[in-house]
Amino acid sequence: MAITQIAQAGDPDITSDFIFPPNIMAVNESFFTHTGLRNIAGAAAFKVTKASLVEFPALNGQSVSYALLQYPGGAINPPHIHPRSAELLFLLDGYIEVGLIDTTNKLFVQTLQKGDLFVFPKGLVHYQYNINAQYPAVALSAFGSANAGTVSIPGTIFATGIKDDVLAKSFKTDVATIQKLKAGLAPKA
Amino acid sequence: MAITQIAQAGDPDITSDFIFPPNIMAVNESFFTHTGLRNIAGAAAFKVTKASLVEFPALNGQSVSYALLQYPGGAINPPHIHPRSAELLFLLDGYIEVGLIDTTNKLFVQTLQKGDLFVFPKGLVHYQYNINAQYPAVALSAFGSANAGTVSIPGTIFATGIKDDVLAKSFKTDVATIQKLKAGLAPKA
Amino acid sequence: MAITQIAQAGDPDITSDFIFPPNIMAVNESFFTHTGLRNIAGAAAFKVTKASLVEFPALNGQSVSYALLQYPGGAINPPHIHPRSAELLFLLDGYIEVGLIDTTNKLFVQTLQKGDLFVFPKGLVHYQYNINAQYPAVALSAFGSANAGTVSIPGTIFATGIKDDVLAKSFKTDVATIQKLKAGLAPKA
Amino acid sequence: MAITQIAQAGDPDITSDFIFPPNIMAVNESFFTHTGLRNIAGAAAFKVTKASLVEFPALNGQSVSYALLQYPGGAINPPHIHPRSAELLFLLDGYIEVGLIDTTNKLFVQTLQKGDLFVFPKGLVHYQYNINAQYPAVALSAFGSANAGTVSIPGTIFATGIKDDVLAKSFKTDVATIQKLKAGLAPKA
Amino acid sequence: MAITQIAQAGDPDITSDFIFPPNIMAVNESFFTHTGLRNIAGAAAFKVTKASLVEFPALNGQSVSYALLQYPGGAINPPHIHPRSAELLFLLDGYIEVGLIDTTNKLFVQTLQKGDLFVFPKGLVHYQYNINAQYPAVALSAFGSANAGTVSIPGTIFATGIKDDVLAKSFKTDVATIQKLKAGLAPKA
Amino acid sequence: MAITQIAQAGDPDITSDFIFPPNIMAVNESFFTHTGLRNIAGAAAFKVTKASLVEFPALNGQSVSYALLQYPGGAINPPHIHPRSAELLFLLDGYIEVGLIDTTNKLFVQTLQKGDLFVFPKGLVHYQYNINAQYPAVALSAFGSANAGTVSIPGTIFATGIKDDVLAKSFKTDVATIQKLKAGLAPKA
Repeated sequence: MAITQIAQAGDPDITSDFIFPPNIMAVNESFFTHTGLRNIAGAAAFKVTKASLVEFPALNGQSVSYALLQYPGGAINPPHIHPRSAELLFLLDGYIEVGLIDTTNKLFVQTLQKGDLFVFPKGLVHYQYNINAQYPAVALSAFGSANAGTVSIPGTIFATGIKDDVLAKSFKTDVATIQKLKAGLAPKA
Repeated sequence: MAITQIAQAGDPDITSDFIFPPNIMAVNESFFTHTGLRNIAGAAAFKVTKASLVEFPALNGQSVSYALLQYPGGAINPPHIHPRSAELLFLLDGYIEVGLIDTTNKLFVQTLQKGDLFVFPKGLVHYQYNINAQYPAVALSAFGSANAGTVSIPGTIFATGIKDDVLAKSFKTDVATIQKLKAGLAPKA
Repeated sequence: MAITQIAQAGDPDITSDFIFPPNIMAVNESFFTHTGLRNIAGAAAFKVTKASLVEFPALNGQSVSYALLQYPGGAINPPHIHPRSAELLFLLDGYIEVGLIDTTNKLFVQTLQKGDLFVFPKGLVHYQYNINAQYPAVALSAFGSANAGTVSIPGTIFATGIKDDVLAKSFKTDVATIQKLKAGLAPKA
Repeated sequence: MAITQIAQAGDPDITSDFIFPPNIMAVNESFFTHTGLRNIAGAAAFKVTKASLVEFPALNGQSVSYALLQYPGGAINPPHIHPRSAELLFLLDGYIEVGLIDTTNKLFVQTLQKGDLFVFPKGLVHYQYNINAQYPAVALSAFGSANAGTVSIPGTIFATGIKDDVLAKSFKTDVATIQKLKAGLAPKA
Repeated sequence: MAITQIAQAGDPDITSDFIFPPNIMAVNESFFTHTGLRNIAGAAAFKVTKASLVEFPALNGQSVSYALLQYPGGAINPPHIHPRSAELLFLLDGYIEVGLIDTTNKLFVQTLQKGDLFVFPKGLVHYQYNINAQYPAVALSAFGSANAGTVSIPGTIFATGIKDDVLAKSFKTDVATIQKLKAGLAPKA
Repeated sequence: MAITQIAQAGDPDITSDFIFPPNIMAVNESFFTHTGLRNIAGAAAFKVTKASLVEFPALNGQSVSYALLQYPGGAINPPHIHPRSAELLFLLDGYIEVGLIDTTNKLFVQTLQKGDLFVFPKGLVHYQYNINAQYPAVALSAFGSANAGTVSIPGTIFATGIKDDVLAKSFKTDVATIQKLKAGLAPKA
């Protein structure tokens, strides 16, 4: 437990070539290899498959990680923030619309085609949307942190138990509207 | 223009005692002094008065800043994120409820009284709410960055022009509900 | 023992939302709350009450901390240095004179009133002095480190056992003057 | 000139959402978009197409970049080092052998198939080799720096004018062998 | 002016091989060479000759610098602090006593002979003293910053104009003793 | 095992005066002292004696270290890279030629005499050569990391088992030449 926490305790430069995993005295080539993104099946809904320090321990201390993003036709990756890194998205297939809002509340919207890149600066809200209802899209996103983290806005705001009146005041609406939003985002039984 | 950008270009350690403002060859004691939080009048609605590198240029390169937060009775500081720093709130007066949601979607709620501190870790969504409808509350918040930045969730999501269908899909609701939320948060004419 | 050291081993960005305290598998809202500055009694002499990672473990990895400074009438916070952070002082009550000396040996002196801020850049010598002999003053200081540290000059130089001749040579004075200074600063029996 | 230098002056966190390009007062969605990796034609020899802060200025201050690597059948990316970042390679197509040597002179060799990842830690020598003589391979590599830099060993050592006797002593061989290697690596007239 | 400020603005990693000096489009081998410590003459009193980014601009962004320290017989380098780096002293000749005081006010004293190293951690007060009255000593000190800075305690405290009563209260002595110390440390007319 | 790894896990600022070694509750003056460079005997071949965090644990977290370099007449320190720091070389005795190659493959060559400094920027290939066949040279090099690391090019490339055909393709030569180089650099039986 202690070791796991410590491994999480920093994304700065390290003073060794790499960080040994706990209880291992030597590493071989498998340590530096990750097959978790091999043969990813099609997704029925928007799906993220991460290769961060959690799934790929060799990334600890190396300040880089990946996520593979699958968008079936019409699927959306809802507004979210990565608290610990910018995201550099490379569109492998399909057409998506991306949106980014900076801290002055300016919205930037762009349509990307296969091979395009878009950078979402660190800590800013952004989303991606497969604008084609039939054709799936796939993207690979790189992060300048081994564990960028994700704060998904819909779930964080409406599915964690924040009280109705706090949300109604915050969003300048009535409690009924908040309860409707909560119901839609609640985990299915 | 060049200088303004440069001043923004980093919160790391500096290699001088302090950073000279542009076009100034020497500084005096006024450079290190900020009177912008002196004699703050009562607020009719929730109000933030910042002392960041924008208002107080001597903070550039010093990795610290303040914000004075005023909550009239029943006022709320809606869910938001500071992309570049943790926030350490010190309650100067009144009673507030604070909420924090981590990246595993766990909500932490606490009621604070005068003199209490609460830390909102870097990049996580949080809010503050004056639970007393009559008595105002005042807090001073410290940041470990000269320019912590703020992403306010309601305005970022519902008042920046993100399309209705993107938001309806993201929040798993209908377009009518999105339009109602947008109307409530739209700037008043 | 191991954990304690590790907790001290960095003020950089962390790759988790927060750092778990040792031997604790889950945290609740109390972890993020600190009541150690609540109901601080009046002080008979200058007094510092810190809220750093030592007193408030949730600050570990968050790069921010506070100190509450109490100055009875005429009291002084002698010249000192914080080796790991700038200090941003907010005067909550009273009138104080602050002094700052940069590495070119230039002195900056300022008188502050309630609500004023003054920034002491990282690693520079500074002091605060309550210039009113009767009225107490109170300040809250923020630091851009969870553990800024303090090197108090009088005690460090004259109450740690540095030999008389080293000090006499350093301060270009005689051994008798050094011994007089040491006697005044020695801990009372 | 000033701006160019400044853009080079740091990969740390920035204190703004993003860094404005010189002489531009506002940005639009094109600033965050890069189409330089769209429609990359087949390559006759090993070829790198970078998307770093040089080609994509929005990456400045965001600590992340990409390179697209094309290996015709049997092609090699010779031993090299990235001085400012680890490299996280994702194999988009084909089969390659990768090699990595740590600072204890231990060699790690791995064969990758489509979809596999391999991390080359910061500052270590590594190479990639398309082991299939006919079938091309393509990889996308992410870096945790906006400008990772490349030191290619063959060219750096044998095509920059280092004197024959220095190289002969360094590689414990004779001048004739050095001259043969230099001739093979010299730019074609 | 702009460039000068920028050069001061950070000791973090850079995203280029090195930082070009202002108004220079290309560098040659002289840029990386510094002859300022060549043929240093004997010193009549304690003397520091620095090779920091001020004297040697190529150090900008490289996070390392040197100081050559000369101690005639019996000379002292009075208590001081380097606000931006630890110091690693290598004694080239002679015998010196070094002293270090940590933030818990613990004094560490050591006698060094030729070839010995002593590390003074970042931000802590320390001194060096040539304990041999006849034989000179010479040391080379390395710093992990291109501009470590120096706060000399005697001059900072007693020769910058801090008022007598502030110092008397701080050092728990009388104004006459303060005035005597000030007179001894005042610049000679 | 855990502690050893953790000690290696960062070169950033620390939040304590220094880092305690494992299993030690208090330190004395010996902890800050290193005598490993005292009385270094003459060397028959090029020899490096390091004082990094491995040999001198007090350097952990202090971001500085030394290496003493001995070059008998005509000896060479072959082309190499330090992945984690720039090197600032101070020539203590003799005459050496130094070479540096930047990432644009530009070679810089300089001849140094006693007392000269030369900086090798972080992550760039460089070498040193004692151009006098009879007279030995000695240098002291400082690093802005407690553990700069070394990648020696000849050994890394030709003595770690990289396959002949990979090297022949990389260096655009034949397998016989590669085998000759490997034989010359192989460890002696």
